[in-house]
Amino acid sequence: MRRILVIGIGAGDPDHLTLQAVKAIASADVFFILDKGEEKADLVELRRAILAEHAGDRPYRVVQARDPERDRTAPTPAYSPAVGDWRQRRADICERLIREELAEGERGAFLVWGDPALYDSTIGILDDILARGAVAFDYEVVPGVSSVSALAARHRTGLNQVGRPVRITTGRRLSEGLPADADDVVVMLDAHQAFTRYRDEDLHIFWGAYVGTPDEILISGPLPEVADRIVRTRAEARERKGWIMDTYLLRRE
Amino acid sequence: MRRILVIGIGAGDPDHLTLQAVKAIASADVFFILDKGEEKADLVELRRAILAEHAGDRPYRVVQARDPERDRTAPTPAYSPAVGDWRQRRADICERLIREELAEGERGAFLVWGDPALYDSTIGILDDILARGAVAFDYEVVPGVSSVSALAARHRTGLNQVGRPVRITTGRRLSEGLPADADDVVVMLDAHQAFTRYRDEDLHIFWGAYVGTPDEILISGPLPEVADRIVRTRAEARERKGWIMDTYLLRRE
Ligand SMILES: C[S@@+](CC[C@H](N)C(=O)[O-])C[C@H]1O[C@@H](n2cnc3c(N)ncnc32)[C@H](O)[C@@H]1O
Ligand SMILES: C[S@@+](CC[C@H](N)C(=O)[O-])C[C@H]1O[C@@H](n2cnc3c(N)ncnc32)[C@H](O)[C@@H]1O
Repeated sequence: MRRILVIGIGAGDPDHLTLQAVKAIASADVFFILDKGEEKADLVELRRAILAEHAGDRPYRVVQARDPERDRTAPTPAYSPAVGDWRQRRADICERLIREELAEGERGAFLVWGDPALYDSTIGILDDILARGAVAFDYEVVPGVSSVSALAARHRTGLNQVGRPVRITTGRRLSEGLPADADDVVVMLDAHQAFTRYRDEDLHIFWGAYVGTPDEILISGPLPEVADRIVRTRAEARERKGWIMDTYLLRRE
Repeated sequence: MRRILVIGIGAGDPDHLTLQAVKAIASADVFFILDKGEEKADLVELRRAILAEHAGDRPYRVVQARDPERDRTAPTPAYSPAVGDWRQRRADICERLIREELAEGERGAFLVWGDPALYDSTIGILDDILARGAVAFDYEVVPGVSSVSALAARHRTGLNQVGRPVRITTGRRLSEGLPADADDVVVMLDAHQAFTRYRDEDLHIFWGAYVGTPDEILISGPLPEVADRIVRTRAEARERKGWIMDTYLLRRE
């Protein structure tokens, strides 16, 4: 039986790796890296650095494939054709990788950014591949420190207020409106600074870009006071590095 | 300057410790353990085992104090007197520990269950102590794998559906009603199996108790089909061990 490990590697700091992840990495024969194109080369670099440090002296293989670009121009409700199509293509690629690059009895690993449970498609893709029935394998998930936990730690704040709920959502959803019943809202995947829509509201923001990496930038404060600074800082950073990864927590106290 | 480390240690599996946590533990002079009484002795045990393995051969001190019991019989809206009072007493205890047990220039560590950002009061208590101004220190937070990430990993599921939000809440809040606008709801701190109120709804549940420990129990399925089994299993486990820690994800597909 082939075995796949879906390993959460944390969101940028190599020391966010868990001991379980270190052991899983040391046990794998093949590592699959889905490359999202030039601009995210730094992300691939972190994975290679982690392998260099933890994969050990035994022989292992790294298989890199190009992650199909998702059409982000199309409007994308939950199960839109655009998302379905993209998942389909990713499943095709991963199925081929597993069949051709992983022998029976071997262990293959996907190194997943942050925690595999948050806005990541690896688990869904493996389930899709298993459902097709063309290749058999068993798989296991190793949880990781998410960018959400990393953000909160760097700002030294909790995600929730005492006994209150917290919502984790996307920039797209936030731009549709502020949830009425959530005092704490974490926003990921926000390419359009949806928080600026609420810059006059009595909200506190804890913002972070490249959290856990040497390029980390943190800004927090009352949204009306810091919104402009975040927009400016974000644009400059994005210009300088060519890409950006940022997350924030909006809090109504 | 005294320095405090708030270290997330994962939610039960000693291998959920991150490399950053391992290094932080190895650097601390004093460990503060807040004991919640006999029934949670296993939780203190895990912390002691982690110290035995990672605190190293150098001398270190362990200071254990009794965590004041929170009055859980009183109704507790966010900032009720009961919660305020309990926080006050915890702050008193921690302030005394820091002042009396940690010398200038030393490093003290709180080993926090799961991720310090989720339903944990350590950060709030340290901020309260700093605001009082009676003792000065600097502090740092080391994020950890939360029981939420651990639960999702063991069930091999994501927390969110593609592009959709997820809400993390408490049993008390869930018993007030199902959030209308969240398809995925994670419930923590549920002493009364609030999910049973929704046992006729078209929901899927991913339930786990003692996740990551040798006693781990996982049950998942359509809520109407598995609700009774969860209630029975939970009651038996609680009876057998004397206490229980469980979390679940409710999903509307
Ligand atoms: C596709 S999601 C993957 C999330 C990942 N599974 C996790 O647990 O963090 C990518 C989003 O995560 C957030 N993100 C990931 N790493 C980050 C970092 N180091 N700093 C800030 N945000 C980050 C950003 O919001 C980004 O748009
Ligand atoms: C006071 S909160 C602390 C949560 C912790 N900071 C975390 O990140 O998991 C305690 C709640 O966490 C959940 N929990 C913690 N550890 C757990 C485990 N090993 N298995 C299942 N649930 C757990 C339960 O819902 C419990 O009521």
